[in-house]
Amino acid sequence: MEQVRNRQPRAVGRAISILERGGDAQAELVAGVYPLTGRARVVGITGPPGAGKSTLVDRLAREIRRRGETVGILCVDPTSPFTGGALLGDRIRMQGLATDPGVFIRSMATRGAMGGVARATRDAADLLDAAGFEWVLVETVGVGQDEVEIVATVDTVLVVAVPGLGDDIQAIKAGILEIADIFVLNKSDRDGADRVARDLEMMMSLGHPTRSPGSVGWLPPIVRTVAPRGEGIGELLAAIERHGRFLSQSGELDARRRAQLKLRVEAILKDRVLAEAERHAGLDREIERGYAGRIDPYALSDGLYRGLLRAGVEK
Amino acid sequence: MEQVRNRQPRAVGRAISILERGGDAQAELVAGVYPLTGRARVVGITGPPGAGKSTLVDRLAREIRRRGETVGILCVDPTSPFTGGALLGDRIRMQGLATDPGVFIRSMATRGAMGGVARATRDAADLLDAAGFEWVLVETVGVGQDEVEIVATVDTVLVVAVPGLGDDIQAIKAGILEIADIFVLNKSDRDGADRVARDLEMMMSLGHPTRSPGSVGWLPPIVRTVAPRGEGIGELLAAIERHGRFLSQSGELDARRRAQLKLRVEAILKDRVLAEAERHAGLDREIERGYAGRIDPYALSDGLYRGLLRAGVEK
Repeated sequence: MEQVRNRQPRAVGRAISILERGGDAQAELVAGVYPLTGRARVVGITGPPGAGKSTLVDRLAREIRRRGETVGILCVDPTSPFTGGALLGDRIRMQGLATDPGVFIRSMATRGAMGGVARATRDAADLLDAAGFEWVLVETVGVGQDEVEIVATVDTVLVVAVPGLGDDIQAIKAGILEIADIFVLNKSDRDGADRVARDLEMMMSLGHPTRSPGSVGWLPPIVRTVAPRGEGIGELLAAIERHGRFLSQSGELDARRRAQLKLRVEAILKDRVLAEAERHAGLDREIERGYAGRIDPYALSDGLYRGLLRAGVEK
Repeated sequence: MEQVRNRQPRAVGRAISILERGGDAQAELVAGVYPLTGRARVVGITGPPGAGKSTLVDRLAREIRRRGETVGILCVDPTSPFTGGALLGDRIRMQGLATDPGVFIRSMATRGAMGGVARATRDAADLLDAAGFEWVLVETVGVGQDEVEIVATVDTVLVVAVPGLGDDIQAIKAGILEIADIFVLNKSDRDGADRVARDLEMMMSLGHPTRSPGSVGWLPPIVRTVAPRGEGIGELLAAIERHGRFLSQSGELDARRRAQLKLRVEAILKDRVLAEAERHAGLDREIERGYAGRIDPYALSDGLYRGLLRAGVEK
């Protein structure tokens, strides 16, 4: 823990591996780390593939360093057993930062299953916060519920859009659009940039019948960037800091943190019930029985849940 | 039920609405429908936005009708409260089929939350099967875990790729690539089509350290289509039927159905534990308490789980 608090990269890396593996060691580590959190700015960056997010994250990190602050970067990495490793593109783009002691970069491998990685990523962000990094950037790729889950546990959500991606806004799903705190219009020097900006503005003007907690009173700005040239990066950091001030001053930070705690607890409960069903209620055996007997999934689940309750009592 | 089995559209539509609403009526309906399933070919179609899937589904349906068979189509629809309705593009593209009595089309609205829709979609596919539709097409958009969840419960998974979409294969996530039974290379008349085909072939030749159940012995073919022109549609249907024969003859169908049953049961258990935590273990109250007391999420979840067990015993 001492070394983690000194931001020693190997200690931080080992700690994150413990978090990824799960189990008792993870729960212990989280319990130790959790009270030390709350000082870092935690920013999530997501958007469809091809939006140039890795370059954007790289430029944000460099700007943060230029200001003399430290930054931890978590890249949620859809590793496929097919390709056997991280998306090399990300690593190559961030090579300039890799030797900077004020920067910590980590790929959170999904190994094909996204569920556990959202949790590990949130825990890793807590760890980097506790370790003293002033900024934590969580980069993920994609625009589905996985990504909503991952970025739902940060303070400021950046959704990156670019001109020319098929159906533009339709390509960016419901969930992500609703939780965006800042829209980043990257590759803004290309044709179609104005149209994307107009689409985003129109959507926002239609009103928000349901908004995620922690956003009442904040209208997401659209910040235009051309990441490879570093254009708009300063403005983007300023927008992030402005959002941070809004959260604190409006009391929205509390609402958001409360909702995030609930999401995390729900995720843990879901994992727990499946683990218990496997270990103590004979999930696999029941599936066999159900399949052979053409029993419908609801009847099977009902039986398993009652089995869980009985097993819990006996313990 | 009588009307459902006669494929009466209003009865079928009402039944699907019951499935979407959940609760006891849903469980009852599923129990009644489940023993009647198993005759339809259930095909899932997914891929990134902009891949032309709706047009592909439309052409597939027309070819199915040309052969004198009936088809139910479920479109999983990322409805956003922002835009207030289904993606109009889908509906417009399928207008030609809307008045055909041998075709049933339904959008499964997600209303921003993807979790429940995977379950409702699977139940709706069962209903269409029980109703006597010979084909059920489940179309979804996107390439994340949501989509893996939705298409994981069909017999044959089509993943649609197109040339020119950013990082091509990188844009299509791990999970989807692993569960594809057939790759559809749509817009195959465009530049870059050969490169996409080569990327897919290279990936497959790297071998499959982990494959989804029900796929040992089947090498996913790459079928080239130009959907608006109807090119490749006949070949695609033939490939789907070939896959169906493979599943039956190899015994892989059993392995797959067993795994699907397990996935469905797990999804139901996860929903159940959260519902019980809200209703009987005081989830919201515990979140308040935990937030005020800076209690970490794992400790909170542990307490809630024990509360669930106690509440279950008292019932």
